[in-house]
Amino acid sequence: MKKYDVIIIGGGPSGIITGVTGKKRNPGKSFLMINEEAKGLVPCGIPYIFHDLDDVSQNAMGPKPFIDAGGDVITDKVIKIEIENKQVTTVSGNSYQYDKLVLATGSTPIIPNFIKGYDLEGVEYIKKSYDYIDNLKKKTDEAKNIVVIGGGFIGVEVAEQLAKFENKTVTLVEMEKFCLYRAFSKNVAEEADKTIRNTNIKLYTNNNVTEIIGENGKVRSVILSNGKEIIADVIIAAIGYKPNAELAEKTGLEINSNGAIRCDNYLRTSEDNIFAVGDCSQTIGFITGRTDCIMLASTATAEARILGYNLFAIKLLRNFVGTLSIFSTEIGGTVFASAGAIDQSAESANIEYVTGSFIDVDRHPGTIKDAKPLMVKLVVSPRTGTIIGGEMYGGKSVGELINVVGLAIQKEVTVYELISFQIGTHPLLTTAPTKYVLIKAAEMAAVQIENK
Amino acid sequence: MKKYDVIIIGGGPSGIITGVTGKKRNPGKSFLMINEEAKGLVPCGIPYIFHDLDDVSQNAMGPKPFIDAGGDVITDKVIKIEIENKQVTTVSGNSYQYDKLVLATGSTPIIPNFIKGYDLEGVEYIKKSYDYIDNLKKKTDEAKNIVVIGGGFIGVEVAEQLAKFENKTVTLVEMEKFCLYRAFSKNVAEEADKTIRNTNIKLYTNNNVTEIIGENGKVRSVILSNGKEIIADVIIAAIGYKPNAELAEKTGLEINSNGAIRCDNYLRTSEDNIFAVGDCSQTIGFITGRTDCIMLASTATAEARILGYNLFAIKLLRNFVGTLSIFSTEIGGTVFASAGAIDQSAESANIEYVTGSFIDVDRHPGTIKDAKPLMVKLVVSPRTGTIIGGEMYGGKSVGELINVVGLAIQKEVTVYELISFQIGTHPLLTTAPTKYVLIKAAEMAAVQIENK
Repeated sequence: MKKYDVIIIGGGPSGIITGVTGKKRNPGKSFLMINEEAKGLVPCGIPYIFHDLDDVSQNAMGPKPFIDAGGDVITDKVIKIEIENKQVTTVSGNSYQYDKLVLATGSTPIIPNFIKGYDLEGVEYIKKSYDYIDNLKKKTDEAKNIVVIGGGFIGVEVAEQLAKFENKTVTLVEMEKFCLYRAFSKNVAEEADKTIRNTNIKLYTNNNVTEIIGENGKVRSVILSNGKEIIADVIIAAIGYKPNAELAEKTGLEINSNGAIRCDNYLRTSEDNIFAVGDCSQTIGFITGRTDCIMLASTATAEARILGYNLFAIKLLRNFVGTLSIFSTEIGGTVFASAGAIDQSAESANIEYVTGSFIDVDRHPGTIKDAKPLMVKLVVSPRTGTIIGGEMYGGKSVGELINVVGLAIQKEVTVYELISFQIGTHPLLTTAPTKYVLIKAAEMAAVQIENK
Repeated sequence: MKKYDVIIIGGGPSGIITGVTGKKRNPGKSFLMINEEAKGLVPCGIPYIFHDLDDVSQNAMGPKPFIDAGGDVITDKVIKIEIENKQVTTVSGNSYQYDKLVLATGSTPIIPNFIKGYDLEGVEYIKKSYDYIDNLKKKTDEAKNIVVIGGGFIGVEVAEQLAKFENKTVTLVEMEKFCLYRAFSKNVAEEADKTIRNTNIKLYTNNNVTEIIGENGKVRSVILSNGKEIIADVIIAAIGYKPNAELAEKTGLEINSNGAIRCDNYLRTSEDNIFAVGDCSQTIGFITGRTDCIMLASTATAEARILGYNLFAIKLLRNFVGTLSIFSTEIGGTVFASAGAIDQSAESANIEYVTGSFIDVDRHPGTIKDAKPLMVKLVVSPRTGTIIGGEMYGGKSVGELINVVGLAIQKEVTVYELISFQIGTHPLLTTAPTKYVLIKAAEMAAVQIENK
């Protein structure tokens, strides 16, 4: 039986980055990746397959960097882990021994089995599977009427892409008052709402799909909780993902209340020599220190880097406990992003906070041709002035500006520090140095602290 | 005689922001700004007046935010400061008493009086004066042949803008091997060089202007050190700026070896109750702690915020000594930026360092339509792994990504922390989470430390 120093189950971003980092840091060790599918996808790129990209092949992501680093890859499915023997067995009947085992088994879409008709033909999902999405794209290309259930990031992005086809009617159904309401506070979510309604998406918020109506076993329409019936050739259910922890559970690893594999700050599970990384592993909220549910390729790869360095010993200290969620998306040309705490999450965790907001144009002078409004809001702990969250919307620069806030949160920067800090500005690239929006938001938060 | 709690001499970014911040923090105090010119300019926007903006009025910046906050403004020139009487006198014969006096007198272009013919008609400067630039724009609009002397940021940006007119021949002369060689290390400066040569600018590096030839008292051509004669209707000398510290010197304030007003970390000069802020005040290198020469609106406004808070007592602590230079510019659609130490500045200050670089596309997958290469290089102190500098080039997102590096330097982030940190990524906005360029550069630097 072949023995490897490290076996990684799963070939998504966390599997690949654990493999690449681990192999580069430990060139003398042997690495095997076992992946169910030969071809992979950039997970966050999937929505763009439906319009902006030509086809699924333009969004391919494979284990090549891992192979280039010297890792072995096989396409197979692990069905059994034997902890005593340090051995895995695949569906094709092969067994491999490991010294260290990494579970990077990802997540799967939640099936809306509480909706009558959920099992009709034509109810689809955003599965992180190359062949599945390839097939789904063919179906959406042909469809005239598409209903997307769920206004989280995936639902909004898929709907936005599909609505770019002028000959399609795309309906988005969200049960909350606003889409993206897990990532943005009321005012920002309202702005996102306005932006979504300015696209060709027909948006129904405060609504559930109460029933999916079929005809000859295929979907024909959906019924909303407001009673409206909407014709649909294809329904895309984007109501969330659940950790793919079946194999771990069967093996006897501890699972948390969200169904994720329990592990410590260094991704070590309840069993020695077994690690879990990415969507299948538990997340701890960065601010609260309690169980959270964040499934992002960016957080998965951050965990994977830490695991890759630390497979054989803790060499790279993790400077905090938990996972900081940083979200960003673009809707109809406007970018929305958030990092860390927002009003709702601070309130639900009973965290005292103040906020400070500022809006200006993202170029200076504002007469520069591509200037767009830029809004930044900071969430701040009033006792120390420490920044614990931020939200923003504006042009494409928001994609990196949110990472300034992300770093500030991770390094516990206070608004007072931020006010005294230097930033780089340029007429064609940023807001003016005299009213750099991030720093003005910090000033506004400082005023709120004084007034408290 | 009218008495003010605070008198600010100068109405550029540092004067305005000191005034706005000071007045807002101290609403009960009276503020007067005395400015030589009624109309002001966004200093860093001046190059764009020559092409991208329609005229100088599109780049106007006035004291309105200060007036809105409750400050008084007069157009006049202070010619005398009496320290004993706490009084200033203007050229128009008026005197005003102050409790606190702020010198925000800015900087003036260096005159190349070492070049024969420097005083001919047609030798121009990028003066931070509304009327002067308004007039200069009329001259450049008419000119066919323009020579820009000096390939620093101002020279490159002005030349780039003027070269966008197809009917003009624009020549840029730089004495160093590369333009922008104070801000970028060799490889990045080489890339900038390539980018400049891809515009319509005729670039001569490793060259000086040895003589300016005139005809009837007006410029006709310049002679380069390589012997070449270049026809010129207008010459723009952009060889740097010197602090405007005349008044301070006359008053007896201490001046440093660069001709800047000496002051402490809170902008206090050698005299009680007199402050100096912005280009006219001394700068201390953030990494070296020794005298430096940085004149940027971004650093000036950062100082002005600190001063505005602290005019009557130190209320806002400054978390470090010195000024971190963060530069960015766009040349022919490519953005170049740097923050803190580069190879040359580290070497000249005898600072041990390693570097780590990485290049990839700034979208993911790379098939996203507006993807551009993004290069990041970090300069790192090997003993602790602390980031002390960074450079990058790429698309417009570089304008804010450099501020992630700027914050990292100011908060003494190590490459090990950065590797373990979370970042936000999105297909349409950033590099892939699996190879986020900034983090890969940190990984490369960590490898260099291990190999050292």
